[in-house]
Amino acid sequence: MHYQSDITGYTSAVDPKYDAKFYTQPQFDHPPFTQEQCEAIHPEHRTPVTFGDKLADAGIRFVRGSFDFVTGYKKPKCAQDVEDGFKGTRYEMTPLKWLTRVIFLESIAGVPGMVAAFIRHLHSLRLLRRDHAWIETLLDEAYNERMHLLTFMKLGKPGWFTSMIIYVGQGVFCNAFFLMYLMAPKYCHRFVGYLEEEAVSTYTHLIEHLEMGKLPELEAMQVPDIAINYWSGLDKNSSMRDLVLRVRADEAKHREVNHTLANLEQKSDRNPFALEIDEIKKPQPSKGLKTHKGTGWDRKDLIL
Amino acid sequence: MHYQSDITGYTSAVDPKYDAKFYTQPQFDHPPFTQEQCEAIHPEHRTPVTFGDKLADAGIRFVRGSFDFVTGYKKPKCAQDVEDGFKGTRYEMTPLKWLTRVIFLESIAGVPGMVAAFIRHLHSLRLLRRDHAWIETLLDEAYNERMHLLTFMKLGKPGWFTSMIIYVGQGVFCNAFFLMYLMAPKYCHRFVGYLEEEAVSTYTHLIEHLEMGKLPELEAMQVPDIAINYWSGLDKNSSMRDLVLRVRADEAKHREVNHTLANLEQKSDRNPFALEIDEIKKPQPSKGLKTHKGTGWDRKDLIL
Ligand SMILES: [Fe+2]
Ligand SMILES: [Fe+2]
Ligand SMILES: [Fe+2]
Ligand SMILES: [Fe+2]
Repeated sequence: MHYQSDITGYTSAVDPKYDAKFYTQPQFDHPPFTQEQCEAIHPEHRTPVTFGDKLADAGIRFVRGSFDFVTGYKKPKCAQDVEDGFKGTRYEMTPLKWLTRVIFLESIAGVPGMVAAFIRHLHSLRLLRRDHAWIETLLDEAYNERMHLLTFMKLGKPGWFTSMIIYVGQGVFCNAFFLMYLMAPKYCHRFVGYLEEEAVSTYTHLIEHLEMGKLPELEAMQVPDIAINYWSGLDKNSSMRDLVLRVRADEAKHREVNHTLANLEQKSDRNPFALEIDEIKKPQPSKGLKTHKGTGWDRKDLIL
Repeated sequence: MHYQSDITGYTSAVDPKYDAKFYTQPQFDHPPFTQEQCEAIHPEHRTPVTFGDKLADAGIRFVRGSFDFVTGYKKPKCAQDVEDGFKGTRYEMTPLKWLTRVIFLESIAGVPGMVAAFIRHLHSLRLLRRDHAWIETLLDEAYNERMHLLTFMKLGKPGWFTSMIIYVGQGVFCNAFFLMYLMAPKYCHRFVGYLEEEAVSTYTHLIEHLEMGKLPELEAMQVPDIAINYWSGLDKNSSMRDLVLRVRADEAKHREVNHTLANLEQKSDRNPFALEIDEIKKPQPSKGLKTHKGTGWDRKDLIL
């Protein structure tokens, strides 16, 4: 592999300069997911209804299609595709290609939550109005994506070319998303919902690849400390599959959150994920995966 | 007073549409301050040393001077000034002027922490590097300022003219601060440090005014629920002075944090406020006011 292992830049615990007592607690505690909840996650698709939905869906399919073509990735269409792994073609996924891919995608994925939180914070300040607790979940999402990135970076650091693409990619995406969020926040959340559908599908593919034993170099690696410290249910003996299962569950959560936020009144509805309420008659959204709804909650089913 | 009392827009607890069970927990828990710690806060000034320091200091003095002149506010120079209260001049501070002033200032104060957190988050993502826990404290600061704003808005809502000034003011300040933070983050933190010195001085003046019984309309108001829920040591019977004491202590904390961050290496030093360490030999920064240092911590005194 062209990747160099990275221990510099790592916080406290493994840096000889520091002592274990310096280890920073996660900024947002991760909600506990059970192993069964993580295993149950699967690709789901919300049928686009409005014109805006269809535009967001088509946008994601176009972006994903182009990105896959350029980077030499093919979504497996059947079990045989996964089994064969496009062996010998430019679509064959090596450990190096997987790592480059997820590092690039996670570096992009950390943008929308932060942009949305930033804009909503400034809105609240300048319009002297309450935010209804959206910011909290958006910042948590942005932090969670950054934790994905930092975790995968423990497995290997990309070279100068990928680094440059990441730098430029953020510049383009961040500015575009910022402008879009100012104009049409509802459809930005829908767009992110569809983006996260793709993330779930990609990680499902990676999990299948790991299960088939096609990525022994990755499997041989230890789950990094930063991940053990962040997710529940991981320890020194956890497999790479256990880690990717949790990352995929996070993406499924983002998918649910963003499809739901896209169904709400942006200015007046409370964020139903910020506070769990016990409702006996009908299930309500939760912070974890207790009442997970892959395609999002419709507004009429929510107690707002 | 021209202010209208505001109960719409208030979250759950007092909105008849909602039930108390919907009351959202604060996004960042407030560190407990004791009454004594709050009482002990006083104006302090960090002597500018470098050219950048002096520029930041002069910038704040210029901005404050112009703002005070335009809004008809004069910093009291002696006990007699506080006692007289510039009675009969355009510098006399009425409850209405106090409220307008703090609401405007808090709406501006919520900007720097969010801008800094936003930029550092994007840096971490695109440069594939750790943030060393700065973002957490910066977001906490931004949230804290927004809580100040929302609290004062419970006491009265400004009219259309102030609202417009707030809207435009943020537009100018946010863009300027954003560009500055991209270019010289160190001096942005110094600038905020000096800004917070002014905030401590203004709230000290307000506390003195309240103590002299010059603002009976304000004192007659009840401390809003949102404040009781956020700060420790406040209840239904707390006075307006108790509330402003806590707000001032928050400003003193921002003053300490920003002067300290301005003394650090922006890219490589850890944020010493994110994690308290027990150090027997020399005191270290803390989240609350246990080891408060009004003019900030020098780099050489920190275990980084
Ligand atoms: Fe992710
Ligand atoms: Fe995601
Ligand atoms: Fe404030
Ligand atoms: Fe402040």
